[in-house]
Amino acid sequence: MAQPIYANLRNLRFLLFDVFQIDSLTQYPYFEDHHHEGFEMLLESAFQIADKHLYPYLKEMDRNEPQLVEGKIRVHPKVREMMRAFGEAGWIGAGFPYSHEGQQMPMAMISASNFIFNAANYSASVFPFLGAGAARLILSFGSQHLQNTYIPRILNGEWQGTMALTEPDAGSSLSDITTAAEPTAEGHYLIKGQKIYISCGDHDGTDNIVHLMLAKIKGAPAGVKGISLFVVPQKRLDAQGQLVPNDLQTAGVYHKMGYKGAPIAHLQIGERGDCHGYLVGEPHKGLTYMFQMMNEARIGVGMNAVGIASAAYYASLQYSKERPQGRKIDNKDLSLPQIPIIQHADVKRMLLFQKSIVEGCLSLLLQTSLYADMAHVSEGEAQENYHLLLDLLTPIAKSYPSEMGILSTSAAVQCLGGAGYCKDFPVEQFFRESRIHPIHEGTTGIHGLDLLGRKVTMHNGKAFQLWMAEMQQAIAQAKTHPQLNPAAQQLEEVLQQYVAITQHLVGLASQHGVETFLADATLYLELSGIIAVAWQWLLQATKATQVWTEQKTETTASVVSQGATQTAAAVELDAQFVQGKVQTMRYFFAYELSKTAALLQRLRQVDPITVQMHPDWFE
Amino acid sequence: MAQPIYANLRNLRFLLFDVFQIDSLTQYPYFEDHHHEGFEMLLESAFQIADKHLYPYLKEMDRNEPQLVEGKIRVHPKVREMMRAFGEAGWIGAGFPYSHEGQQMPMAMISASNFIFNAANYSASVFPFLGAGAARLILSFGSQHLQNTYIPRILNGEWQGTMALTEPDAGSSLSDITTAAEPTAEGHYLIKGQKIYISCGDHDGTDNIVHLMLAKIKGAPAGVKGISLFVVPQKRLDAQGQLVPNDLQTAGVYHKMGYKGAPIAHLQIGERGDCHGYLVGEPHKGLTYMFQMMNEARIGVGMNAVGIASAAYYASLQYSKERPQGRKIDNKDLSLPQIPIIQHADVKRMLLFQKSIVEGCLSLLLQTSLYADMAHVSEGEAQENYHLLLDLLTPIAKSYPSEMGILSTSAAVQCLGGAGYCKDFPVEQFFRESRIHPIHEGTTGIHGLDLLGRKVTMHNGKAFQLWMAEMQQAIAQAKTHPQLNPAAQQLEEVLQQYVAITQHLVGLASQHGVETFLADATLYLELSGIIAVAWQWLLQATKATQVWTEQKTETTASVVSQGATQTAAAVELDAQFVQGKVQTMRYFFAYELSKTAALLQRLRQVDPITVQMHPDWFE
Repeated sequence: MAQPIYANLRNLRFLLFDVFQIDSLTQYPYFEDHHHEGFEMLLESAFQIADKHLYPYLKEMDRNEPQLVEGKIRVHPKVREMMRAFGEAGWIGAGFPYSHEGQQMPMAMISASNFIFNAANYSASVFPFLGAGAARLILSFGSQHLQNTYIPRILNGEWQGTMALTEPDAGSSLSDITTAAEPTAEGHYLIKGQKIYISCGDHDGTDNIVHLMLAKIKGAPAGVKGISLFVVPQKRLDAQGQLVPNDLQTAGVYHKMGYKGAPIAHLQIGERGDCHGYLVGEPHKGLTYMFQMMNEARIGVGMNAVGIASAAYYASLQYSKERPQGRKIDNKDLSLPQIPIIQHADVKRMLLFQKSIVEGCLSLLLQTSLYADMAHVSEGEAQENYHLLLDLLTPIAKSYPSEMGILSTSAAVQCLGGAGYCKDFPVEQFFRESRIHPIHEGTTGIHGLDLLGRKVTMHNGKAFQLWMAEMQQAIAQAKTHPQLNPAAQQLEEVLQQYVAITQHLVGLASQHGVETFLADATLYLELSGIIAVAWQWLLQATKATQVWTEQKTETTASVVSQGATQTAAAVELDAQFVQGKVQTMRYFFAYELSKTAALLQRLRQVDPITVQMHPDWFE
Repeated sequence: MAQPIYANLRNLRFLLFDVFQIDSLTQYPYFEDHHHEGFEMLLESAFQIADKHLYPYLKEMDRNEPQLVEGKIRVHPKVREMMRAFGEAGWIGAGFPYSHEGQQMPMAMISASNFIFNAANYSASVFPFLGAGAARLILSFGSQHLQNTYIPRILNGEWQGTMALTEPDAGSSLSDITTAAEPTAEGHYLIKGQKIYISCGDHDGTDNIVHLMLAKIKGAPAGVKGISLFVVPQKRLDAQGQLVPNDLQTAGVYHKMGYKGAPIAHLQIGERGDCHGYLVGEPHKGLTYMFQMMNEARIGVGMNAVGIASAAYYASLQYSKERPQGRKIDNKDLSLPQIPIIQHADVKRMLLFQKSIVEGCLSLLLQTSLYADMAHVSEGEAQENYHLLLDLLTPIAKSYPSEMGILSTSAAVQCLGGAGYCKDFPVEQFFRESRIHPIHEGTTGIHGLDLLGRKVTMHNGKAFQLWMAEMQQAIAQAKTHPQLNPAAQQLEEVLQQYVAITQHLVGLASQHGVETFLADATLYLELSGIIAVAWQWLLQATKATQVWTEQKTETTASVVSQGATQTAAAVELDAQFVQGKVQTMRYFFAYELSKTAALLQRLRQVDPITVQMHPDWFE
C-alpha cells in the first residue's frame, strides 16, 4: 500500500489563489514584496520540511512519549533538529516584520503552512507554533530590551516560547489565578506559584524555555483586572550574559490519551524565592495582552483539528480504494470479485462527511486568517469591520472544527473497520489526538458563551450584521449559476431563521435572565458553525463552477487563437476536482446544514431544562 | 476524592422490577423456581464479584496489554482467577437450563448482570461473556458428545469459548471466507485457514480455547449457503482423554486503541494438516446457527457500550460535583468562592446527555432482553410476535448505544476538561474503549442495511407494526398523566412521520433501485434509535410518575391504617429520583428527539448524493 498524502496541495492552492485570491494582498504596502510565485514556493517548501522533519516521526513520537528524567522532560531527539531547521528556514518568524528578520508573510499563508505541518505531525508542529505566538506577544507589548533578548532566539529555534496561564484552581476561570509577582528594586519581579498543563513547558529540544506567564502583582485588584503578563524564562541571563537557572522546577509531565509527542508540564515557580519575571507592557493589562496570543492560538487550534482530520481523511480514502470487501448491493453475484469498499454508498457517505469537514473548515480558517490580514493592512472603518469579523468568527473557527474533528477522525476509523481500531494504521492515533481540541484554548462551552454572550451583541450587533452581509453576497454570487441556486436558496432560508433565533435569544436576557439566555449557547455555537461552513462551501462551489466555465470557454477560444488568451483562474482545475467540490457542497447542505432544523427547534423553546436540573437529581 | 460508582443499582432495580416487572416471568413454568428476592440477590452478587474481580484491574489491564510470548498470548494474571471465580459462582452458565447445571435465569437478569460487569471492567467482562455464547451454540446445535465434552468446562471457566468468523479477506463479507474443512473417515474434519480479530482467541487465563468456527466443507456451495460451523479446540482430547495440541498457531496479537485487556488474536489453522474440527449440526447451515450467537452478542455489544458509558457518566458526575471553577453566570462577585462546575448549565447539559443515553439505552437493552425471554416462554402467535420484535430491535439495540457511547464518553471527557484528556482519570480510557462498538459484531453500516433492507419489511412489515403498537400503548399510558402529555404528543407526531418515511423509503426500491433505497440506511437506523430510546424514556417517566403518585397516596393512607396497605411499587422511590427521571426524559425529547427533524428532512429527499459520488472525485 502506497503512503497516503496527509494534505492536498491542489485544494490549498484553489482556496488561497482562487477562492480567496490572496495575491491581491500584494497591492498593500506591507505585503508589496510578495508575489504569487513566492506564495507557491512557500507551500512547496512547507511540504518539503514537513516531509523531512515532521511526518517520518508521527508514529514514533506517539509511541515514545515525553518522560520526566531527573527534573527535566526528555522529548523525542528529533525535536531539537526540527526546531533548528524550522528556525533556520525562517518558519517560526515567517509572519514577523522585516525589522525582526521576519518575512511579513500574510497570516493566510502562515495558516496554510501550519495546516500542512499539523497534518504531517500535530504534536511536532506545536513546538514552533507556540514559539511564534510567544515572540509575537513580546513584539507587540514588550520593551525593546525584552524584544532584543528573546525574540531572535525564539525565532531561530534555539529557545522555546510558551503561554503559561492555567493553575490548579484556575482553568476556565482565569480570574482566580494566584501566581504572585513581587516587585524588586532591580526592576524585575519575583514570581511564585504553580502552573499546570503548560504545552512545551519544559523539554530538552531547545536550550531554554521562555514562558509568557500570567501572574498577579501584590496588591493588584481582584479578578481579571489584576492580572499582569511576564516573561519568565527557565534560565535567565546573568550580568555576564550566561544562562543561569531561574528557580523554575518541573513538577511533572502529563500522560495523555494522544498528542503525546508534545510535553505538557506542571511547573513549580519560585520555590526558593529566586524566580525572576519581567513585566510585559503595563501592570494589570496582562489578560488583554494575552488575548492576542490566545486569539491567534484559537485559529491555530481550529487548524490543528483540521490538519489531523485531513491526514485521517486521506488515510481512510486510500484504504477505501484498496480494500476489497463485499459486492454491489444490486448485484451480489458471488462469481464476481469483491469490490473496493469505496463503491459502497455508506463508505462514500463517511468519506464525503470527512471531505466536507476538512475542506469546509480549512476554508473557514483561511477566510478568518484573511480577515486578520485585511485588518492589518486596511484603515479606518474597513479596518474596524475586519477586526469585528475576525472577533466574531474566532470562537466559531476554533470550536466547530475542533468538535467536528472528533467525528471526522471517527469516520476515518469506521472506514477501516477493525483495522482502524488497531495500531498498525494511523487513524486511531488521529482519533485520540483530535479529542484535545474542544478542551484547550477555551472549552467549547466557554466559546459558546463568548459568541452568544459577547460577540453577537458587541457594537450593537455590528459584527453579526457584517457577517450576514458577507454571506448574503456569497448567496447572490452563487445564484448566478443555475445549478447552485437550490443551495443558495437553502442557505438563504436558514439565514433568515438564524437572524430570527439570534434576536429571540438576545431578547431572553431581559425577560428571563442571563442564565436562561445563555443556557444553550453551545447549541447556538454549533448552529453558527454549520452555517459558517455551509457559507464556505457555497463560496467554493461557486468559484469552482465559475473557473470551470471559464476554462471551458478558454479551451474553445484557444483552439481559435492558440496561446493568445490567459485563463482567469490561478489554478487549473479538472472536471473531477470541480465535480468533487460541487458534490461535496451538495452533501454538506443535504446532510449537515439540515441539522440546523433540529438546533433551531430546540433553541426556539423557552424551557430552561438544564438550568432547572438540580445536582441531586443526577444520581 | 471518593471512588465513583460505575453502575447504579437503584436504577437497575427500577427498570427491572417497576418498568419491566420481570417478577411476572416467574408465572411461566421455565422460570417458576425464581422469585423477586432471588433476582435482588443476583444483582447484589453481581456487584460483589465485579467489585472483587473486575473493577480493581480496570486500569492495570489497560496499561499492561496482552503480549505474544513464544507463540502464546499472555494476559493479566488475574484473568485466570476471574474466570474460575465466574465459573464457580455459576455466572458463565447462569442462563443455561438446569440440565446443564445452569440456573435458567431470564435473559433480562443476565443482561442486567452483564451491564454491571461491563461497567466495572469492559475488557475483563468479555472473557466469560464469550464463553457463554460459545457454549450456548453447542447446546443448541451440537451433538450430545460435543455438549458433554465442551459445555461443562466452558461454563466452569476452565476453558475459553470464542466465535471465529473473520478472515483477512472476509470481514463484513462473510460469503467470502475460505477456511476449508475436509472430512475424514474418523468423523472429524481437517481444518485449514486463517482467522483474524478473534476476541480471546488465545490466552493463558484458561487451560484451553474452544473456537466456534465458520469454515467451508470442500465442494460446498458458494457463498453463505456453503458455510458450516465447527468446534475447533486449541487442544483436543486424545483417546486417553489427554489434551494434545490441535495444530492451531497464534500468528499475532493486535495492539489496539482501547479494550486492551482482552486479547484479539490472529490464528493460523492447520498449517501441518492436523487441525481437527467437529461439525456442529448439519453441513452448510453454519451461518444460520452462528446468527444465534451473533444476535445474542449484538445485544451484548449494545450493553458493553452502555456499561462503559455508565462508568464514564458517574466518574464525570462526581468530578463535576467536586471541582470548583468559576461563578454563577448571573453573579460573578469575586469575593464569593468558586462554585462546583455542576452548577453551570452547560455542564448540566453534558451530564443530562450522558444520563439520557446511559439510562435510556440500558432500558432499551433490557426491553429487548425481555422480548427474548417472552419469546422463550410464550407460545403460538405470541411467541412469533416476540421473536419478530426481538429481530427488529436487535440492529437498533446494538447500534444506537454503540454510536452514542462514543459521544457519551466524549461528554464525560469534556466535563473534566484537561484532566479528562490525561491518564490520571479513567474517562480517557472509557472514550478509547467505546470506539470499538460501532465496528465489531457488524458495523453500523451493516446494521442499517439489515434494519431497512430486511427487518422492516419482513413478514409484510409485521414486526414494524408490532413495534408501532407497543409504542402507541406507551404513549396512551403516558397521556393519563397530564404532565407527560406534551412528551407523549411529541413522540406521537414523530411516529406518524416515521411510519410515513418508512413507507416512502420502501417505495423507493421499486422506483429507483435498491442502491438508492438503501443509500441512507445508516441515517434511518439513527432515526430509529432515537425513537426507540424516546419510547423507553416515556415508559420510565410514566412509571416513575405513577409509582410516585401511588407512594404519596400510600403514605397518606398508611397514616390512617398503618401497615395495612402495601405499596404497588417494587422499589421505593424518592422525589429526587422521580424528578431526575422526568427531567431527563424532558432533556431527551427536547435535545435528542428533536434531531429526528433533521434526519427526516434528509430522508425525504430523493437525491442519491452518495451513490452519485464518483471515487475519483474525492481527491
